Amino acid sequence: MIRPAELIERKRDGGRMTPEEITELVLGHTRGEIPDYQMAAWCMAVYFRGLTGDETLALTDAFVRSGSTLDLRSALGRSVVDKHSTGGVGDKTSLVVGPIVAACGVPFGKMSGRGLGHTGGTLDKLESIPGFRVELTTDEFVKQVREVGLAIIGQTPDLVPADKQLYALRDVTATVDSIPLIAASIMSKKIAAGAEAIVLDVKVGDGAFMKSVDDARKLAEAMLELGRGAGREVVCLLTDMDQPLGWAIGNAVEIREARGLLAGEESPPDLFALAVQAAGRLVSLSDLGVDVDEGTRRAERAIDDGSALEAWDKWIAAQGGDPSPDVLPDAAVRKEFAANRDGVVARISALGLGRVALDLGAGRRTKEDSIDHSVGLRCFAKRGEPIEVGQTLVEIHARDEASADNAIEQIGPLIELADESPPPRPIVLETLT
Amino acid sequence: MIRPAELIERKRDGGRMTPEEITELVLGHTRGEIPDYQMAAWCMAVYFRGLTGDETLALTDAFVRSGSTLDLRSALGRSVVDKHSTGGVGDKTSLVVGPIVAACGVPFGKMSGRGLGHTGGTLDKLESIPGFRVELTTDEFVKQVREVGLAIIGQTPDLVPADKQLYALRDVTATVDSIPLIAASIMSKKIAAGAEAIVLDVKVGDGAFMKSVDDARKLAEAMLELGRGAGREVVCLLTDMDQPLGWAIGNAVEIREARGLLAGEESPPDLFALAVQAAGRLVSLSDLGVDVDEGTRRAERAIDDGSALEAWDKWIAAQGGDPSPDVLPDAAVRKEFAANRDGVVARISALGLGRVALDLGAGRRTKEDSIDHSVGLRCFAKRGEPIEVGQTLVEIHARDEASADNAIEQIGPLIELADESPPPRPIVLETLT
Repeated sequence: MIRPAELIERKRDGGRMTPEEITELVLGHTRGEIPDYQMAAWCMAVYFRGLTGDETLALTDAFVRSGSTLDLRSALGRSVVDKHSTGGVGDKTSLVVGPIVAACGVPFGKMSGRGLGHTGGTLDKLESIPGFRVELTTDEFVKQVREVGLAIIGQTPDLVPADKQLYALRDVTATVDSIPLIAASIMSKKIAAGAEAIVLDVKVGDGAFMKSVDDARKLAEAMLELGRGAGREVVCLLTDMDQPLGWAIGNAVEIREARGLLAGEESPPDLFALAVQAAGRLVSLSDLGVDVDEGTRRAERAIDDGSALEAWDKWIAAQGGDPSPDVLPDAAVRKEFAANRDGVVARISALGLGRVALDLGAGRRTKEDSIDHSVGLRCFAKRGEPIEVGQTLVEIHARDEASADNAIEQIGPLIELADESPPPRPIVLETLT
Repeated sequence: MIRPAELIERKRDGGRMTPEEITELVLGHTRGEIPDYQMAAWCMAVYFRGLTGDETLALTDAFVRSGSTLDLRSALGRSVVDKHSTGGVGDKTSLVVGPIVAACGVPFGKMSGRGLGHTGGTLDKLESIPGFRVELTTDEFVKQVREVGLAIIGQTPDLVPADKQLYALRDVTATVDSIPLIAASIMSKKIAAGAEAIVLDVKVGDGAFMKSVDDARKLAEAMLELGRGAGREVVCLLTDMDQPLGWAIGNAVEIREARGLLAGEESPPDLFALAVQAAGRLVSLSDLGVDVDEGTRRAERAIDDGSALEAWDKWIAAQGGDPSPDVLPDAAVRKEFAANRDGVVARISALGLGRVALDLGAGRRTKEDSIDHSVGLRCFAKRGEPIEVGQTLVEIHARDEASADNAIEQIGPLIELADESPPPRPIVLETLT
């Protein structure tokens, strides 16, 4: 029997724990035998001292073992792919990538989360679609991946309960920001959910969890190692979150944008580039046996030939939603924020715009808040783009005049126009395999 | 209203808290509004980041304000003195100093604690005396200090409940070893208990909490600052705990040694020196208006003229005990550990001998353990003393043969004999005023 206080002390002093000790600690906590206060102290010690690769692997393994796991290969007789983003502003990539990949003939099965603070959540966005059900049972999930080739649902409660419990504790004890703890939390969910090939999108920038490429790389490397340890194919993309991804920030507005891209409508180039690259990677990691270049070509083709849009419609309908964009909720008030000078966009705060959308009601400050699916922003300004005075930079979708005006007031300082173009920064900053 | 998670995060990141924030956090915890897990994470953040002087002062103040406080000056019309030790092996100094100071006409009022692990506790030692009551009410305590001039009791439950609660949490979350947290914990108790002049004995060495003079000095300086902040006269002695203090380690054996010293019997020189210096300091800090030299002379005189022994007998009787040493419990078995060579004592592990005494039953491993007051050790070996082969180094007082033999086996490696004398080290290493 382990003594939690001794393990906390050892970690506090920079010592190492055995895999058995990590397992006992985590599962003891989940069983209610080790109290929250000891786990909180341990997490803070880990915040300062870190975890070794072996410790992180043991932690991930303990999370996975705390609940049930899905074996999608056995269930489908095929390799299923998944994609995860560490969260950002305007990040609707999964909504686009899922249908593209499915259209390429690669089964895509993802369990996703809700938004908190300035970062949106895929489930919240999907719930702007009337009738769409995010809470499927495991059996329904497997069946849909098998028959429709695509499912995105909320995490089932029997998956990684230890992580769920520990994350809730970390959230209120300022111990979320620890790379090994984040890596174990993300990867345990991905591993338990059963996909064999995973593309991880690690966002970097002011609107992301990771503010620097260095930190993002560390997280990516930790996750790659955990994926390898569990026998999964993983690729990490470090992608730019120093400006919102695409134009739309919100829920219904993002669903429109995602579907618009698949429908071949005019779309934000950064979202298009990321979606095609991520989808191309997933296709190349799948059991189709093609390389990245061929995967990327197939992804582009799926958009061009309408098969990705078809996959979208089929998927939305399979989960009970109405795939027509006409049924999406519209905000009562629309206002525009225009440029007050000529110039080039030098800087846009993703964090700032995420907060404006949050204020409009598109997100939740606390887990208990409810979301207004109709509100949000469309920010057409993109770093490096030339702008003319009077040009619409942001379209505000608000529930009333007052909140629209309030948003406009806040937006001013978030978009900086200058005479000189900033150095270019691609959407995909690095790819780690 | 403060947000605990934000305060934890700020401390984690090395930021400062306002006095109001510290107060709200601590008192919120005591009221049960802030959960243990948040306080545990905060304490671990404090372990790594420390507290500023102002933060430590606010913490101490919050502890004091969490319960009732004693105003001994108003109650007695005089300044009362107190002494505290950070804990060691064989430390019966308070038992000797109290009667000496009382004999000098200085009222001595102390609330004390119990032992845990290898360190003994004054209350446990006093409870070897048949009939002795350590649990007095506040009124009884004040009355006894007024009428008898001396009382040592257990901390009353209405004093510093916030510290009590937080200490229990720190104890199981590996967050005890933080200098500002220790300083605030000790000083809040001393301040609330009402003494105006306090001598703090900060032990340094393998048997003490502080292993280095540097750390001990930091703790001493933090406590001096807190004492000054509360308007108390405080002197800190840094004293040697690289070997046990005096000869006896246990409970009844230490009571015998303390009383023996006061009775003018042959006594360990280190204990005698420390007792006289500490008592001298207290007399000089009291309202008698004498300097340290005169205080020390009066302390020595009180031993020589028998008035300190008289004060002892009066005190023990006042708290219901039988002052005669004959009534103290005796262990069933006595064995001796002898030197296996000629030489000089090069090293004695205070920690090691403390653990042997603990194994004999003189201490408690967990708070729930009970103590055997009769058992213990008397270690006559003192660093630097010449030893002849066959000479008794340690006398073991055990409850049975087996535990005595077990003790003898353990003692061997704890006392090192060499050819050369180690460099001398006085009992009082430094005095901070």
